[in-house]
Amino acid sequence: MPNAVQFELIKTCARTGARAGILHTPHGDIETPIYMPVGTQAVVKAMTAEEMKGLEAQIILSNTYHLHLRPGEDLVEKAGGLHTFMAWDRPILTDSGGFQVFSLADLRKIKEEGVHFRSHLDGSARFIGPEESVAIQQKLGADIAMAFDVCSPYPCDHSTARDAMDRTHRWAERCLKSHTRPDQALFGIVQGAFDKDLRIQSVKTLRDMDFPGYGIGGLSVGEPKALMYEMLDAMQPHYAPDKPRYLMGVGTPDCLLEGVARGIDMFDCVLATRVARNGTLLTRDGRMVIKNKQYEEDFRPIDDTCDCFTCTHHSRAYIRHLFKAGEITGARLATIHNLRTLIRLMQEIRRAILEDALPEYRADFYRRYDMATAFNREEPA
Amino acid sequence: MPNAVQFELIKTCARTGARAGILHTPHGDIETPIYMPVGTQAVVKAMTAEEMKGLEAQIILSNTYHLHLRPGEDLVEKAGGLHTFMAWDRPILTDSGGFQVFSLADLRKIKEEGVHFRSHLDGSARFIGPEESVAIQQKLGADIAMAFDVCSPYPCDHSTARDAMDRTHRWAERCLKSHTRPDQALFGIVQGAFDKDLRIQSVKTLRDMDFPGYGIGGLSVGEPKALMYEMLDAMQPHYAPDKPRYLMGVGTPDCLLEGVARGIDMFDCVLATRVARNGTLLTRDGRMVIKNKQYEEDFRPIDDTCDCFTCTHHSRAYIRHLFKAGEITGARLATIHNLRTLIRLMQEIRRAILEDALPEYRADFYRRYDMATAFNREEPA
Repeated sequence: MPNAVQFELIKTCARTGARAGILHTPHGDIETPIYMPVGTQAVVKAMTAEEMKGLEAQIILSNTYHLHLRPGEDLVEKAGGLHTFMAWDRPILTDSGGFQVFSLADLRKIKEEGVHFRSHLDGSARFIGPEESVAIQQKLGADIAMAFDVCSPYPCDHSTARDAMDRTHRWAERCLKSHTRPDQALFGIVQGAFDKDLRIQSVKTLRDMDFPGYGIGGLSVGEPKALMYEMLDAMQPHYAPDKPRYLMGVGTPDCLLEGVARGIDMFDCVLATRVARNGTLLTRDGRMVIKNKQYEEDFRPIDDTCDCFTCTHHSRAYIRHLFKAGEITGARLATIHNLRTLIRLMQEIRRAILEDALPEYRADFYRRYDMATAFNREEPA
Repeated sequence: MPNAVQFELIKTCARTGARAGILHTPHGDIETPIYMPVGTQAVVKAMTAEEMKGLEAQIILSNTYHLHLRPGEDLVEKAGGLHTFMAWDRPILTDSGGFQVFSLADLRKIKEEGVHFRSHLDGSARFIGPEESVAIQQKLGADIAMAFDVCSPYPCDHSTARDAMDRTHRWAERCLKSHTRPDQALFGIVQGAFDKDLRIQSVKTLRDMDFPGYGIGGLSVGEPKALMYEMLDAMQPHYAPDKPRYLMGVGTPDCLLEGVARGIDMFDCVLATRVARNGTLLTRDGRMVIKNKQYEEDFRPIDDTCDCFTCTHHSRAYIRHLFKAGEITGARLATIHNLRTLIRLMQEIRRAILEDALPEYRADFYRRYDMATAFNREEPA
């Protein structure tokens, strides 16, 4: 059976690990490297699907855990699948629910067969194992499904990390066995916590299983950025060259750039949309807290180099007023700007790779980017 | 000085009091009769100004009371006025704040000089009189400003009603005297509670003051619809024929139609946008509570005759899911539909007037419209 998605490598950076490619999927091509906006509950918060096209989003991520609980995969299947349900005809990736149930902490129990947990909505007892996750994702019908994995915390002792990794590998085999949908690709997920040897072992083990793509899980869970980069550096020589690599849950501007330089093709993160709803705007030099008094009479756009709807129509003073007044429209305008900023950043990074200029782009990025005000991985998004 | 707005009467219905006209304003022409969406805090809740154009909104209403408290008229003036501040280049009407301070109940004291009140935001002591209201509205810079009036409650004894009306007339004179902005029209406001004689007296008194237009205030404050219609019937023969008449705070579909049939040209109401955010949708036969179980697997649009973005892109089942999941996008899609429904209704009513077919349109309206599930004036919006 040919894979539902095919990765075409267009260009490799000679001076970093960066790559430009095209991921061919049943719902169209995705130019990589790519930032994937998150539509947890079959909607990117505060946005419509049409607006996501206007931002030039090429793929949206959605969540198996959330959609399973509400509205349920059976309803989505009846609607004609997730694309039809949410009126988005471009590619979709669903994560497996592994990370979400892991995050339930006291509400879940991880066993060999899968995860027993209680719904955060109504407390009802639930179970998802590898087969259940695959079955749900097949009903949802995204272009890319993810294997059900076991995440480990930060910090993490060696035996916990190894056990989680080994179980993740066994579950990956079970996911592969139960996955049958021909128009959907199933990606494996690399684990191994913060142990380079485990990370390399996980990359190699999954590579041997020949998935059409790989998620890098278990990073960006509270560790310093430098430690995440160390893990990425360790794994980089061992990836399958012809398969896409997806760094899960990473999405600050500097981490996107550093991830690309370390051979990553795909990213997702709720940070851009979550902080937007609190009035924090991503800018080319870091962040802008729009409620601050200093913007009260500032009639300039958020970023005069930005081409988004917000920056071409509305002033900082107006957006600040909307946030101070508790208006939904403020959250919308901020979300539009933040998403477009990350999408545009990735477009620029891709162009730089194609023009053999990524190191120069990276140097220029850090000249303008204030790491002191930038988002750190360690802080809660 | 020529009036900043001019009303051009295009057609009068031979069988009802309805009129079709054009209101020429500094920011463009408005086809009447018109429903004016409400942007209380310089934004129509959940919407952008660009989207309002897409709905074919011709004029937006905003609120002196709210904008005075936040962000303040001085900031709006510095931004270049309300049009520039909110990025809406079509006509705007600001109400005077009279009704809002009246609604503060225990927080305000109405005296001959004006109203002493406490801000609902921070409890600070404030004062707005006729001159202050006009000064604020001149800084905001809407195309149409409203005189500062005294509303009376429902029910209301005769002497309270007469005192409020008399004071409204004295305040109207003071507003006229202090209003100087040449590119802004000042409308008077008719009061008189639920006493036909007072209502007629108020219409005549204000008519003699020669305002370029008239608001009908103090209706739709909790009285039965039949009583409101009775008042409108009493006033109808006495309006200046060449001036627009604006029925303030009225906006259920049936009341819009009945108001037009009684000679009203302009309407505003928060009902459409307020109920939208709770998931109640205006439909051609009444209302739809989208969270109801019956819509769970209903993949049809809200209204298959509706041309709005929501109805042409999304299903009842999806919108229900968004509301059940607490997603902002649900409120947006509902707001778009409800506003477009009222705007489209008024477009149909205007066409019917122009085609000498309003009574037939009205009969057809009531054949499809279920008054039992429709919004009543008596219930809180």
